[in-house]
Amino acid sequence: MKQYVPLEVPASEPRLSDGIEPCEGGICAVAGIRAAGVCANLRGDPQRRDLALVAANETCVCAGVFTQNRFCAAPVQVSREHVADGRARAIVLNSGNANASTGEPGLEVARKTAGLVAKELGCAEDQVLVGSTGVIGVPLSLDGFVTGVPAAVRELAHSTEAANNAARAVMTTDTVDKQSSYEIKITRADGSVTKAHVGGFVKGSGMIMPNMATMLCVLATDAPLDAEAAHKALLDAVQETFNKVTVDSDTSTNDTCVLFATGEAGGETICVGSPEYACVAAGIRAACEDLARKIAADGEGATKLVTVDVLGAATTEDAEKVARSIANSPLVKTAIFGHDANWGRVAAAAGKCGVDFDQYNVDIDLMGVPVLRAGLPLPMDEEDMLRRFEGPEVPIAISLGEGTSSARMWTCDLTHEYIVINGDYRT
Amino acid sequence: MKQYVPLEVPASEPRLSDGIEPCEGGICAVAGIRAAGVCANLRGDPQRRDLALVAANETCVCAGVFTQNRFCAAPVQVSREHVADGRARAIVLNSGNANASTGEPGLEVARKTAGLVAKELGCAEDQVLVGSTGVIGVPLSLDGFVTGVPAAVRELAHSTEAANNAARAVMTTDTVDKQSSYEIKITRADGSVTKAHVGGFVKGSGMIMPNMATMLCVLATDAPLDAEAAHKALLDAVQETFNKVTVDSDTSTNDTCVLFATGEAGGETICVGSPEYACVAAGIRAACEDLARKIAADGEGATKLVTVDVLGAATTEDAEKVARSIANSPLVKTAIFGHDANWGRVAAAAGKCGVDFDQYNVDIDLMGVPVLRAGLPLPMDEEDMLRRFEGPEVPIAISLGEGTSSARMWTCDLTHEYIVINGDYRT
Repeated sequence: MKQYVPLEVPASEPRLSDGIEPCEGGICAVAGIRAAGVCANLRGDPQRRDLALVAANETCVCAGVFTQNRFCAAPVQVSREHVADGRARAIVLNSGNANASTGEPGLEVARKTAGLVAKELGCAEDQVLVGSTGVIGVPLSLDGFVTGVPAAVRELAHSTEAANNAARAVMTTDTVDKQSSYEIKITRADGSVTKAHVGGFVKGSGMIMPNMATMLCVLATDAPLDAEAAHKALLDAVQETFNKVTVDSDTSTNDTCVLFATGEAGGETICVGSPEYACVAAGIRAACEDLARKIAADGEGATKLVTVDVLGAATTEDAEKVARSIANSPLVKTAIFGHDANWGRVAAAAGKCGVDFDQYNVDIDLMGVPVLRAGLPLPMDEEDMLRRFEGPEVPIAISLGEGTSSARMWTCDLTHEYIVINGDYRT
Repeated sequence: MKQYVPLEVPASEPRLSDGIEPCEGGICAVAGIRAAGVCANLRGDPQRRDLALVAANETCVCAGVFTQNRFCAAPVQVSREHVADGRARAIVLNSGNANASTGEPGLEVARKTAGLVAKELGCAEDQVLVGSTGVIGVPLSLDGFVTGVPAAVRELAHSTEAANNAARAVMTTDTVDKQSSYEIKITRADGSVTKAHVGGFVKGSGMIMPNMATMLCVLATDAPLDAEAAHKALLDAVQETFNKVTVDSDTSTNDTCVLFATGEAGGETICVGSPEYACVAAGIRAACEDLARKIAADGEGATKLVTVDVLGAATTEDAEKVARSIANSPLVKTAIFGHDANWGRVAAAAGKCGVDFDQYNVDIDLMGVPVLRAGLPLPMDEEDMLRRFEGPEVPIAISLGEGTSSARMWTCDLTHEYIVINGDYRT
């Protein structure tokens, strides 16, 4: 009987080089960063942390990327303005209310929240960014911030516990806090080594009851990036990681991802043209990829992390289109929930998205097992497939046989729990 | 308190004019058409009808539109060839096996099936079309057809019962058979009136266990259309009806929609330029729209038929993009299942799809109730909304305030039952 070789998919990300290693501390692994997460009673539960603050010791380089949704929340508008000059001191985040569709009063609350933080830290209001997640269309009161912000500033600390508190204060339907940190060894032109760090946390797991999926991500590095380098490294990383995650194809009015670069690792400033840039950018990408996978694995109701690799596409655009089509297919996602090695649904999802290919050139692997070659099914050992479904991850690989471009996307299965979480009445 | 007026959405389709009225008979309302549905034991249940046959009394004008999926089943390939000359005698359909991803042997079975029908009817093999729905990647045996086709030909009849049998033989996860028929009064240039009919049936309700969504639709009219007119009327109708239905955003390898035009209503041939064309095309569209709504209402696990109207778009393309984004949003669809008047999810789905608009120009109505005006929420009577959710239909209307283009899309809610149907293991 003919033996079929599995498709060669790229190695698991992050591709850690000698210079990049996981470390402890979350966002507080980064020199010059303090964090806090406090109970500000913003969501009607005085025992629940709902206000997070991350502050650099001094105003420093900062970059941000924000939702492309045409409905865009007040904090996004304010943060966009405040980060426009490439510098910031802090970001304050709340859960419980998204401050979206709240008009001019919402903008005022977001600005005043930034002002409260600025006053406590002794910086300008436009050096403070704001992020919100929770219900939309409900006015956000400043009240909780009036007491909550000073409390958060008092609790600011450079510790793993402080990082934990901040990461937990932004959780909504997330079932776990999602943090990541890496140590980066930057080899300088003169042979000396600068030890730098990148760390951060993210929230997001689908939509937020009662409204929409929000991703809030705060990252920091002590590598001495200039503003352009920070912006490029963040944008490139987000494009290859957070923008490649889909839980339910819905994107939010509030998505925000910011990167502070404190420079406290020392040494000469690193710009996009510096030889050291690639190493720092790889570290930032590693953290983003780690957090992106954690979002997919914690997708609302998810039982599996699903990685979709599309290979052999004519162009990267084609590869991404096919990957997105498979990762968003409810039929693929319910099949995985049902432990059904249903390659037919993968094929149909690939074929429906308008990308041109010949079905008789297509190969598909499920969980490392060749199931389709040249468009025709191979005999399948169903017992073996059921055993493979016991693991926490389901890799899907498809080769279109059209070229050499590829793309990767992360998602999760579609389960009863997703319907429970999102079909429940709001109140 | 300010009163808000609901958005003006187009009247419910089909917009029946004096000349177009529903009638009895399904596909057998059409003169010159006979139908049958028999048990051919193609799906391992000898008591279940699984083979349908629709035949014109003579070879006649025929048009077909087929799946755009790059994975395309054998019967689709064969039917495309056989209808290329714009004429056909019959179509034979089976449920239980999609004959997809079956390579050259699958093509041979599809051709031989057509050959069996041709032999019994006394016509050429290439005058017979083939449609299949069911599992993919499993060889389809000719055996069931060898006895089933002669049985179906023996049972061919011009009766409501025969139409019912054919419509039921193609059902898979459909919970009801879906048929439609209209009488069309065609007023001729000389003032005389020709009574014509259009009738048909469709199957489709999401994916077919264990594989994919398939829509098989057979339509017929006795209006004397020429081949070009039949093709244009069908294509235009499909574009505005079946192509505007989404159950789970997945499209199939087997989708097929054909229209026979027997000409038996009599009178001069109607071509695209004839003054009578519009009336016949409207009748065909009415039948397609009726069947399309029935597909959405019978979506897998559906409890509600959802109609999405997008108004005030800059272009039709924009309107369709927004309508599709809302209709495919799992968050919108689970909210409807949960009887949650969650306009925020509608807004977010509209905003995420890349269409440009100003959020402060957007109006939204849910079930006829204004809930958002100029981007800001209106007070909502939650009790009233819950009462409105008791009905079988949920209309959503959104105006973008950018122009005068509009689009309509039909879908259904996303429920536990969808997960049950599609998450069950195949065997």
